[in-house]
Amino acid sequence: MGFDKIKRSEDYSAWYNNLVKDADMAEHSAVKGCMVIKPYGYSIWERMQQKLDKMFKDTGHVNAYFPLLIPKSFLSKEADHVEGFAKECAVVTHYRLKNDENGKGVVVDPEAKLEEELIIRPTSETVIWNTYRDWIQSYRDLPLLINQWANVMRWEMRTRLFLRTSEFLWQEGHTAHASREEAEEEAKRMLEVYADFAENFLGVPVIRGVKTANERFAGAVDTYCIEGLMQDGKALQMGTSHFLGQNFAKAFDVKFQSKEGKLDYVWATSWGVSTRLIGALIMAHSDDEGLVLPPNVAPIQVVFVPIYKTDEERVKIVSYLNSLRESLDKYEIRCKVDDRDTFKPGYKFSEWEHKGVPLRVAVGPRDMENHTAELARRDIKQKETVSQDNLVEKIKSLLPEIQQSLFNIAKEYRDSHIHKAETWEEFEKALDENPGFISAHWDGTTETELKIKELTKATIRCIPLNNPQEEGKCILTGKPSKERVLFARAY
Amino acid sequence: MGFDKIKRSEDYSAWYNNLVKDADMAEHSAVKGCMVIKPYGYSIWERMQQKLDKMFKDTGHVNAYFPLLIPKSFLSKEADHVEGFAKECAVVTHYRLKNDENGKGVVVDPEAKLEEELIIRPTSETVIWNTYRDWIQSYRDLPLLINQWANVMRWEMRTRLFLRTSEFLWQEGHTAHASREEAEEEAKRMLEVYADFAENFLGVPVIRGVKTANERFAGAVDTYCIEGLMQDGKALQMGTSHFLGQNFAKAFDVKFQSKEGKLDYVWATSWGVSTRLIGALIMAHSDDEGLVLPPNVAPIQVVFVPIYKTDEERVKIVSYLNSLRESLDKYEIRCKVDDRDTFKPGYKFSEWEHKGVPLRVAVGPRDMENHTAELARRDIKQKETVSQDNLVEKIKSLLPEIQQSLFNIAKEYRDSHIHKAETWEEFEKALDENPGFISAHWDGTTETELKIKELTKATIRCIPLNNPQEEGKCILTGKPSKERVLFARAY
Repeated sequence: MGFDKIKRSEDYSAWYNNLVKDADMAEHSAVKGCMVIKPYGYSIWERMQQKLDKMFKDTGHVNAYFPLLIPKSFLSKEADHVEGFAKECAVVTHYRLKNDENGKGVVVDPEAKLEEELIIRPTSETVIWNTYRDWIQSYRDLPLLINQWANVMRWEMRTRLFLRTSEFLWQEGHTAHASREEAEEEAKRMLEVYADFAENFLGVPVIRGVKTANERFAGAVDTYCIEGLMQDGKALQMGTSHFLGQNFAKAFDVKFQSKEGKLDYVWATSWGVSTRLIGALIMAHSDDEGLVLPPNVAPIQVVFVPIYKTDEERVKIVSYLNSLRESLDKYEIRCKVDDRDTFKPGYKFSEWEHKGVPLRVAVGPRDMENHTAELARRDIKQKETVSQDNLVEKIKSLLPEIQQSLFNIAKEYRDSHIHKAETWEEFEKALDENPGFISAHWDGTTETELKIKELTKATIRCIPLNNPQEEGKCILTGKPSKERVLFARAY
Repeated sequence: MGFDKIKRSEDYSAWYNNLVKDADMAEHSAVKGCMVIKPYGYSIWERMQQKLDKMFKDTGHVNAYFPLLIPKSFLSKEADHVEGFAKECAVVTHYRLKNDENGKGVVVDPEAKLEEELIIRPTSETVIWNTYRDWIQSYRDLPLLINQWANVMRWEMRTRLFLRTSEFLWQEGHTAHASREEAEEEAKRMLEVYADFAENFLGVPVIRGVKTANERFAGAVDTYCIEGLMQDGKALQMGTSHFLGQNFAKAFDVKFQSKEGKLDYVWATSWGVSTRLIGALIMAHSDDEGLVLPPNVAPIQVVFVPIYKTDEERVKIVSYLNSLRESLDKYEIRCKVDDRDTFKPGYKFSEWEHKGVPLRVAVGPRDMENHTAELARRDIKQKETVSQDNLVEKIKSLLPEIQQSLFNIAKEYRDSHIHKAETWEEFEKALDENPGFISAHWDGTTETELKIKELTKATIRCIPLNNPQEEGKCILTGKPSKERVLFARAY
């Protein structure tokens, strides 16, 4: 473990890659752009899944599963959608291999060519709306509130573990409604679910906003988003929720009979978050010692490390730690007693630090004599010797405190990295010298948005919800503007 | 809902298809051979997943995720494996579409051809063992006990919902060990986990056995299996657990240093069950009225149906049923109060019957007067009027009783459908007149096994574990045999 070799402040990108490796989270696979999510990284994803799944079910959604493969022609049915997704996708053209006649292993059997090519889903609107056509006849069949947990694939040229990979894991909600209002409400409700999850579970403060036309999901009328700010001042889109209007209903001819007996196209939403959130989690809290995990999402919340010289000491201390663990089990606090005899305490301390375990409890022979234990908080790196009396209570109260503290620190950082820029000079200066969100006026045209991106690599992350209306002038063109938008360089 | 049109005894296959449709479990998708798992079917899969996942974790396993796509050359590395899996698989050859120059939608971009074709995983031994090479150096890295929940694809020509589909959902465990004994023990341990799950969770009795060489997993040294018997006398392989020897370690050059400092190849197992188990569940218990679900796996264990004429009655009865549901919530009994005002009680009864809800509780105005309720058991179709006193206790005790009863009935059926055949005539007669497992002597050669399959479509399902040794003569060739094996026609 050579973790401490790369400092966050020196090379953020190398620090990130090294952390993902050293914390045993994920690695690149033999297939370009696809990752292997290792057990420790996957256990974080499982915790996210459990929580999100509960939040979806609590808001009335059910899960289902739709096919991995989509007929090529489906992609063309929604005009914007095909532009957005047909470009970089994995195409299945054959369904059989055969032994090479020259003995060179297996080759594609030319006889087994598909009549129509199939695409590995980059997202499932098309195949799902093609299915919904048979499921929806009347207003009585609505709303349809369905979510899917799945893998998807978008062929990416430049990949980074968790943040941008060709294959990734995600959930995609696809809902169908009898009215525009209800669908818009659903899209906003799920945005709020995501924001709640990001802030209260991952401890990452987010800005709730709506995308500009240029940044919208291909096929959406409105794309709502949550945007987080990473420690290097770059923004990260952490989740999106789309109001799709009647676009997919029209593309796939999905109509319903209303209460009044009128035929109309169905209204739709879709919304998703992915394993990208693991990247956000890492980049929002971690430090030069490795991963820092908020207790809510940590697979192990408390690790117990016995310190001993003799076997007798070992047995006594480990037995005490196991009894502590059992007491905490009752409160569903996830603990591990690291009683491995093949590693020294220093190695264990370092390993669990790398892996971001929020709280470490070390107990040695002197602690046993003095009836004490050493508590170490991963987040603020403070140690404290405490009495063994009320240790369970102490741990119980520390975990939510750590959770809140991580959110507060991230929020303070985020809030102090939203700058107003009134002129182009201020805008460029802020981007280079003090990166973060820049709140600035913009003339509302895609042309200007693209020009700014070309000049600075900054994009409009969103127009915040409940944005105050304020007269001003576009930082690039000087044309009139009615509100500020948030720019940033982004992942 | 035209469920009662097709009788199980008349056309088992049509009955099954109709049931899957009427219980809202799954349907065929636009892509040949791939299914859509509908919310009700998926909720059954979710319950299976939860239980299995807990069983895997309780036996020391962790989850991870490996890539969907496998380089074609990987398949060729293990000689038997390629024979078994390269034949029918989905092949990705390109990574981009483009707009057709003649305006005919999108076409495959010939410029975006992959250097090496990629296969959608039919199973993941190859990609996982290619990864394990970097994870395993020493005996300290062993055992590696990893499971993956994933979708896989095997191009099937003749498909049937849940039982055989081109894409299906499954879990695949892949473990690595320092010794042959430990790996063999793991393979058997996981077979026992599967058998426990099948019998005690799904209520389906299974025979634990080992496959003949001819029926072995491609690349395995031994394939252990659990075999169930469906109501039409056909067998269904419900799960397999493979002892892979050092085959994949050799194919992917995965060595470890032993405690004694010796370099050796790693020993392996793999084991899996899939959405096929939903098919098994249906075919083991259901009847002419539709699905019958054992309470352990039922998404809804108890449905409450209010019967009323006036609004006043409705309010009073629904409020009583809600209070009952709350009482049962405390015991984690999954209940639903069907208070839909748009359907009559008869319709609701029929719908929940189709969907296999184990227990129905109906309460009308007279019941409220008499302080009674009508309990209806789905499994044995018996109704009983009971007092509202102790209703919660009654329901609590009935659910495990139903679970046990379903298992007992299935076991009785299974046990009475294992026949011994001493001669070829008896063998053929049993297969045609009283299908089930046939226990018979076989000379141990693949040649005879294939000949019997050709003549009768019956295959050797397994050699039961702890099979009594018994001298005899092969039913086909008359050659000497040391033990009986189980034949059956199978799904």
